[in-house]
Amino acid sequence: MERIKIGIIGAGRIGKLHAENLKQLPQVEIKTISDIFADNIRDWAVQNGIANVTADYQDIMRDPEIAAVFICSPTDTHIAIIEEAAKAGKHIFCEKPISFALDKTVQALELVEKSGVKFQTGFNRRFDHNMSRIQELVREGKIGDTHILKITSRDPAPPHKEYIPASGGMFIDMTIHDFDIARFMVGSDVEEVFVQGAVLVDPVFAECGDIDTAIISLKFKNGALGVIDNSRQAHFYDQRVEVFGSKGCLTIQNDYPSSAELYTADGVYRDKPLYFFLERYNEAYVKEVKAFIDALVHDTPVPVSANDGYQAELIAHAAKLSLQEKRPVKVEEVLTQWHISV
Amino acid sequence: MERIKIGIIGAGRIGKLHAENLKQLPQVEIKTISDIFADNIRDWAVQNGIANVTADYQDIMRDPEIAAVFICSPTDTHIAIIEEAAKAGKHIFCEKPISFALDKTVQALELVEKSGVKFQTGFNRRFDHNMSRIQELVREGKIGDTHILKITSRDPAPPHKEYIPASGGMFIDMTIHDFDIARFMVGSDVEEVFVQGAVLVDPVFAECGDIDTAIISLKFKNGALGVIDNSRQAHFYDQRVEVFGSKGCLTIQNDYPSSAELYTADGVYRDKPLYFFLERYNEAYVKEVKAFIDALVHDTPVPVSANDGYQAELIAHAAKLSLQEKRPVKVEEVLTQWHISV
Amino acid sequence: MERIKIGIIGAGRIGKLHAENLKQLPQVEIKTISDIFADNIRDWAVQNGIANVTADYQDIMRDPEIAAVFICSPTDTHIAIIEEAAKAGKHIFCEKPISFALDKTVQALELVEKSGVKFQTGFNRRFDHNMSRIQELVREGKIGDTHILKITSRDPAPPHKEYIPASGGMFIDMTIHDFDIARFMVGSDVEEVFVQGAVLVDPVFAECGDIDTAIISLKFKNGALGVIDNSRQAHFYDQRVEVFGSKGCLTIQNDYPSSAELYTADGVYRDKPLYFFLERYNEAYVKEVKAFIDALVHDTPVPVSANDGYQAELIAHAAKLSLQEKRPVKVEEVLTQWHISV
Amino acid sequence: MERIKIGIIGAGRIGKLHAENLKQLPQVEIKTISDIFADNIRDWAVQNGIANVTADYQDIMRDPEIAAVFICSPTDTHIAIIEEAAKAGKHIFCEKPISFALDKTVQALELVEKSGVKFQTGFNRRFDHNMSRIQELVREGKIGDTHILKITSRDPAPPHKEYIPASGGMFIDMTIHDFDIARFMVGSDVEEVFVQGAVLVDPVFAECGDIDTAIISLKFKNGALGVIDNSRQAHFYDQRVEVFGSKGCLTIQNDYPSSAELYTADGVYRDKPLYFFLERYNEAYVKEVKAFIDALVHDTPVPVSANDGYQAELIAHAAKLSLQEKRPVKVEEVLTQWHISV
Repeated sequence: MERIKIGIIGAGRIGKLHAENLKQLPQVEIKTISDIFADNIRDWAVQNGIANVTADYQDIMRDPEIAAVFICSPTDTHIAIIEEAAKAGKHIFCEKPISFALDKTVQALELVEKSGVKFQTGFNRRFDHNMSRIQELVREGKIGDTHILKITSRDPAPPHKEYIPASGGMFIDMTIHDFDIARFMVGSDVEEVFVQGAVLVDPVFAECGDIDTAIISLKFKNGALGVIDNSRQAHFYDQRVEVFGSKGCLTIQNDYPSSAELYTADGVYRDKPLYFFLERYNEAYVKEVKAFIDALVHDTPVPVSANDGYQAELIAHAAKLSLQEKRPVKVEEVLTQWHISV
Repeated sequence: MERIKIGIIGAGRIGKLHAENLKQLPQVEIKTISDIFADNIRDWAVQNGIANVTADYQDIMRDPEIAAVFICSPTDTHIAIIEEAAKAGKHIFCEKPISFALDKTVQALELVEKSGVKFQTGFNRRFDHNMSRIQELVREGKIGDTHILKITSRDPAPPHKEYIPASGGMFIDMTIHDFDIARFMVGSDVEEVFVQGAVLVDPVFAECGDIDTAIISLKFKNGALGVIDNSRQAHFYDQRVEVFGSKGCLTIQNDYPSSAELYTADGVYRDKPLYFFLERYNEAYVKEVKAFIDALVHDTPVPVSANDGYQAELIAHAAKLSLQEKRPVKVEEVLTQWHISV
Repeated sequence: MERIKIGIIGAGRIGKLHAENLKQLPQVEIKTISDIFADNIRDWAVQNGIANVTADYQDIMRDPEIAAVFICSPTDTHIAIIEEAAKAGKHIFCEKPISFALDKTVQALELVEKSGVKFQTGFNRRFDHNMSRIQELVREGKIGDTHILKITSRDPAPPHKEYIPASGGMFIDMTIHDFDIARFMVGSDVEEVFVQGAVLVDPVFAECGDIDTAIISLKFKNGALGVIDNSRQAHFYDQRVEVFGSKGCLTIQNDYPSSAELYTADGVYRDKPLYFFLERYNEAYVKEVKAFIDALVHDTPVPVSANDGYQAELIAHAAKLSLQEKRPVKVEEVLTQWHISV
Repeated sequence: MERIKIGIIGAGRIGKLHAENLKQLPQVEIKTISDIFADNIRDWAVQNGIANVTADYQDIMRDPEIAAVFICSPTDTHIAIIEEAAKAGKHIFCEKPISFALDKTVQALELVEKSGVKFQTGFNRRFDHNMSRIQELVREGKIGDTHILKITSRDPAPPHKEYIPASGGMFIDMTIHDFDIARFMVGSDVEEVFVQGAVLVDPVFAECGDIDTAIISLKFKNGALGVIDNSRQAHFYDQRVEVFGSKGCLTIQNDYPSSAELYTADGVYRDKPLYFFLERYNEAYVKEVKAFIDALVHDTPVPVSANDGYQAELIAHAAKLSLQEKRPVKVEEVLTQWHISV
């Protein structure tokens, strides 16, 4: 069996993580990794059996042996790379968000579609053992028709100050995962969004024109309602979901480092949940790349499509508009705003 | 020690419940109970040691020995009874809501205030062992500043069809408890409300101009955000609260008939939570009337004031307006709507 | 309907508790309560509507109107009172243990049986919402055949030093409840006992010839195995049971004052379980006396028989012998030891 | 950095597992694997980058480059291989039990000690995230002095009939892990053992002279008491531990495939715990071999010593004797039985 040759573009935290997970898959060879600071990663690449390191990702595009690329570079580089990869006939795994500009996302995805390459959006949470289990139970009809979706999604601590202005704002940076999980759980697109947002954690968010706390109401096209609550500072990674329907309710809780509990005269104590996404979604990242590779090997559809990436961005832009205009916003209004014809 | 003599007006489910709880208190004598179907309750009254049963609640108003009345009659009778009781100098325990019309609630409560009688609103949930415990911990500063309040409040099954049109709508009938708990937990009044409502449980609600499912976003005057989710059909009484703040998060869960769990080859099973409010808030109802009687005995403020009743109604009316006009509504808009000058 | 007249003998903590619970039952009148310190309880008796207080329990025996007695006096007075009550034709509710001497227990119970009066042993835990629920599920066959029973039973803090020598030892004073629950859960008598005992909490137990910590292995007549672990000092009342069988496992946990949980950067905290038996078994005590009164009213068998009381004592004596002789002891050996012919 | 060369002897389920885990460690090279059915594993070896496959483990002994061996062959081959490895100066990781015969275990370990090679016993559970966390908290003094240890250890389903006679009996095959965890948690050796054993799952155990269900009482040299309950059939892997002491109690629960819970009108449901050791102790096996390799790299003591292996066998033999003679057995009696002088 010949191994699928992969190129990885961007060797930051997430690029390295994907590389280390891909390394475990016998069907895969990571042929080349590119990073603008190529020298910084040479040792790491050797330790991980990656043959080529380059500062120029075009080396990957030009290599006819490379069948698929992982786009792990900063968001503002995504569109150009996607377009080049599509033209080069390389399958694409792209980190979220696809871009900060909805019209460019649309253009790029149209090109992808025409080119016929596969495109998977990096929504790792769908592969989480908790998330995937309740989605499966929803799909099996265990709760009947879905009436209410609830997502709690809170980061342990705010990002660095420098990161905030470049993040695209909380919705496109952080909540985008929740928008995807919302669609994943309910099995329907979103029709309307209303945001109550606030700066309660750190005034730096206000200085950057951003928020750090939000309650986001959703109305889905199938009639279900939903709510996401976000905070940039929960002291651990608080990621819980509840799906309520005509027959019952499904819930998932946080994951813990252990089940140890200490009972004393002063009360009952246990360690807090896992601190952040690398711990919590460790296995989900493995399953995510495995699912992409499986889709390549068997030439089957990828489990998280380009449209999934686009839809989550659409909701994020609607949320932004709702926050600005302090009113409920139809998701389709965003199309008008961005001059997109469906 | 002389016992405080009580009159109870209305001997439906809640009137009888209060009577049976008051009976346990050594400082109290239930002297008279009135109900328009007086004959139906005579046996029950004898069994519970209540001396007088009358079809005319004016018998209670005219009795100078009676120091306090419990108003447990239908909502549309409350205002008249409150005004008569206030004029008669009798302390008042009044079931929620005080009335369906905000201007009448205001008028009645002004009269109460002038008369100097005590007035407690029947928000029993504040006395629940779970609710009161987390409110205490919030007040002690355990979570720092409150950022997000979340209330899940779902009835086990819809009320009878006949009840719906007379209920005043879901917000004033059911969610009013949640609006009160919201203020209780956050320690602040509400500034703005936005509602996503739907009829997902039973079309009869639409026929009655009501809804059965809602996501209600709240913005509090102190800057905190909140969300309440309601359903008329959860198959058990689902009442959970979460308060999240700068230092941490407090949660409460449902109460269960037992802690029994069954582990088998097919999975892990436990009985569902307590079915409805009489089971879940059984003890809370006892504490509620005890607290009212204590306030009479010691001439101290009642723990749930007339203003608490009024504020919850105010939010309910704002929620109704938001639902109708599909937009966020400032609570103060409701004052204009009802021609109330503060 | 005429009310059953009750006499209560002994107005310590448990006598008063039973009185206050009996007071709630409409079918019952507590006619007389006796206590050697009669004067101390007169006020309490008035407040609780008990007509007669006496220092001489013979007043109860002599009263032909009194149909049933509650024996709540110290253990060393039980036998004489049981015999007198049986002769007087009065039904008996007797606190555990029936006596410290197995031969006397047997004699008294033979007399009870001949007299035809009902006799309920005060094993309140059978009426606990948790205990009764899993026993019901065991009986329904949910776990198939029972293989292993596990009981954790730990007091919050040791009794007063003065109490220890008069307690009859840990097995007859404390573990006797566990021996009863063991038979209740497994539905079989015990065949063999082995004890590992120790003094780990306080040397005063050793000074009194007692222990404070134990692991008690049980073999039941139906082949099941069991283990009880006891401690005199758990800082709260730790009462958990697990029944494991061919098809699965049933567990119950402790009860908590609330479900409140506090999540912070330092971990997750909740209040410890209820402190002691008056809180934990509050409702069980109510149900226990109600079940006794129901058996009187309907002339049906009592739910906890004289034999149940006897069997638990039998196991307690076997446990004591095992501890002394450091070997497994057949329960029938105790019969020989006490010269009892079955 | 030169990589430590490893030889693995025995490529059954556990041998392959260790190989796949060792492969992840950059400091290690698996040079050779031996199995009597060498041909069966050649494909697997290639896929896992193992250079040499042999049917003769002496090839490993003779290879001067190989610094350490993993002994994963059947128990009755351990002693000979340990002795050869020790003579060849190779460090040893040996699966449990070291042998079925205590005198041979002692001889082999004496030889190991003289030779100066490191020897780690394969008690993987010490590396479990739950087990290690509570042991850490015990060691930190969080529960004060240890009074009671409780271990629940139940397999999902009995082993194949053919396996039972060759297993050495339940204590040496299965409970040996619990005996090790007991010592690990309490931090003390065991002084006395008493067993209540039974055949309740399948009569085949009786036919093989074995049992399938047991309650094992332990007395530790430091005065603490303990109990282990075992079953060969729990329908999932039931592995729970509780350590109770003067200041409080520590517990760990089973691990679950997810935290998903389904609430319906019929009750609350969740999936059962992980099915067996490969799922439950997946990570523990990784940490176990990593710890061994770390001890080689840094020339530090291994975390689970030869003595740990020996002590667990000692208790297992005492348990067997207790079962046979139906009496409590001092662990030192086993030394006499096996003619071992300490």
